[in-house]
Amino acid sequence: MLVNAETAQRVLDAAAGLGYRPNAIARGLKTSRSYTIGVVIPDLRNPLFPPIARGIEERLEPAGYTSLLANTDNDADRERLSFEALRARQVDGYIAASARREHPLFHELAANGRPLVLVNRTTDDDDLPSVVPDDRDGMRQAVAHVAALGHRRIAHLAGPVELSTGVHRQEGFVQGLEASGVPLDEQLFVAASRFTEAEGARLCRELLSRGRDFTAVLAGNDLLALGCIDALREAGLDCPRDVSVVGFNDMDWSERFSPPLTTVRVPHHRLGVGAADLLLERLAQPLAPTRHVVMPVELVVRASTSQAATG
Amino acid sequence: MLVNAETAQRVLDAAAGLGYRPNAIARGLKTSRSYTIGVVIPDLRNPLFPPIARGIEERLEPAGYTSLLANTDNDADRERLSFEALRARQVDGYIAASARREHPLFHELAANGRPLVLVNRTTDDDDLPSVVPDDRDGMRQAVAHVAALGHRRIAHLAGPVELSTGVHRQEGFVQGLEASGVPLDEQLFVAASRFTEAEGARLCRELLSRGRDFTAVLAGNDLLALGCIDALREAGLDCPRDVSVVGFNDMDWSERFSPPLTTVRVPHHRLGVGAADLLLERLAQPLAPTRHVVMPVELVVRASTSQAATG
Repeated sequence: MLVNAETAQRVLDAAAGLGYRPNAIARGLKTSRSYTIGVVIPDLRNPLFPPIARGIEERLEPAGYTSLLANTDNDADRERLSFEALRARQVDGYIAASARREHPLFHELAANGRPLVLVNRTTDDDDLPSVVPDDRDGMRQAVAHVAALGHRRIAHLAGPVELSTGVHRQEGFVQGLEASGVPLDEQLFVAASRFTEAEGARLCRELLSRGRDFTAVLAGNDLLALGCIDALREAGLDCPRDVSVVGFNDMDWSERFSPPLTTVRVPHHRLGVGAADLLLERLAQPLAPTRHVVMPVELVVRASTSQAATG
Repeated sequence: MLVNAETAQRVLDAAAGLGYRPNAIARGLKTSRSYTIGVVIPDLRNPLFPPIARGIEERLEPAGYTSLLANTDNDADRERLSFEALRARQVDGYIAASARREHPLFHELAANGRPLVLVNRTTDDDDLPSVVPDDRDGMRQAVAHVAALGHRRIAHLAGPVELSTGVHRQEGFVQGLEASGVPLDEQLFVAASRFTEAEGARLCRELLSRGRDFTAVLAGNDLLALGCIDALREAGLDCPRDVSVVGFNDMDWSERFSPPLTTVRVPHHRLGVGAADLLLERLAQPLAPTRHVVMPVELVVRASTSQAATG
């Protein structure tokens, strides 16, 4: 909405009389911006996403923006509806944690003129700004850790192949085995269709049904790791005595689980802050070059990993 | 936006050519509704709220509504900004999980004409529709449980006094003691300023500093209980051997903690579904009488409670 100065002043006076904040309204009148950002989350019940959302809010709020969240539940139709609702509500830009490696909707949105920044997950073609963890390096660290504990039969319970977090961690797994001189065995590889505890349990049972000769499982994320530990227990196996398990994310409460989870710590809050920074940059300079930020991660060793049993 | 039939048809045809869903657009044209609901959450990192949000979405989606979430971080200024952003984005109604017992903002909003439904927490004056757990009964069950295990020195680490969940559970605690014939001792009562682990640890240290002669702690929620268990451990005390601890909510992963947490199970997903039902009712019949739904809760006994040590 573009209005002349006299009208703007009249609106501001009326608003002040009603107790509203003149700054927010004045900005809206001058710039036609809504000062609202849409944040699209794939699964609110996965505890890695709330810290990302908080990081985004902490950075956007001092810049005068409010964020509105939509949860897609990993469903492409709901994702499209969420973006349509946000677009119809005239948000100034989007931050999406719901990227799949191939993501036609994102290209439609980007062509639409409002900036879109990806967080945590990215697309294969790299043409949208993104802030992601160093997934490959995290998994390399995890392999090096269990290899140093004497493990040689190391299974990978990978994340979904359509997500960058699934595939990049899988690449890191292969690189890590090479670096440690541990042979790759395709019988010890399974890939999840979702990042959930139930899927982790199902796939661990699948690995066990192939003949249990692995002594360590590197899971694509913490929820898969938790499900894996459940399935091991069902089969009468103890983690870490019989099988070491490593997660990925260091989600809230990881240190409280039984056993406390060895995992790769991803700085989710900082990912959110970084994504908000990139979005503010795009809003200020729509034609700025596309930037990709990869944040370092670190292995956190707790009690779900131990020395490989000898003999 | 009210338009004539011909224009509407032209828009629908154009939209269909672009791959949009004609139903959602047609409804918007006919009714001037946005088919968007604002959901206001006080703390996204408290794991009880995502299941409420999911329940709301599951009920609203088949009715054609998209929900947009705003996180207030328990801050009254951010809450006001969130509601302003949602109102400016023209949502059709609100569901708020952020109620305080006295809440002037809600009365402004309700006077504004768009329906507002409270979930999980309610206000003292009861003039807004609400769906809450039976907080008093849950805490009575918790007291009966530890009393049956022989505990007589029972402490209460209550939630914030400005929240219905804090005060109603506290009332249930007092009622439970009376029913079990256990005397009330004010030295064994502390109230939190926030529902966080850090606050639970701080208050448990406070209780311990008064001279540790309690054998059970009933916490106002699970996060307070987790912090309490940490503080007991710091002081060289074991839960449940030395002190039994009961939480409230049965938050995700409660059964995975060490020890697995005895707690009161609140049906958060169903609270969300119920709140969405009340909102849809208000949207269909704005003058319908205000309804209050109280949902039953049940104690889940795990390993953080045990027989009181004798002698």
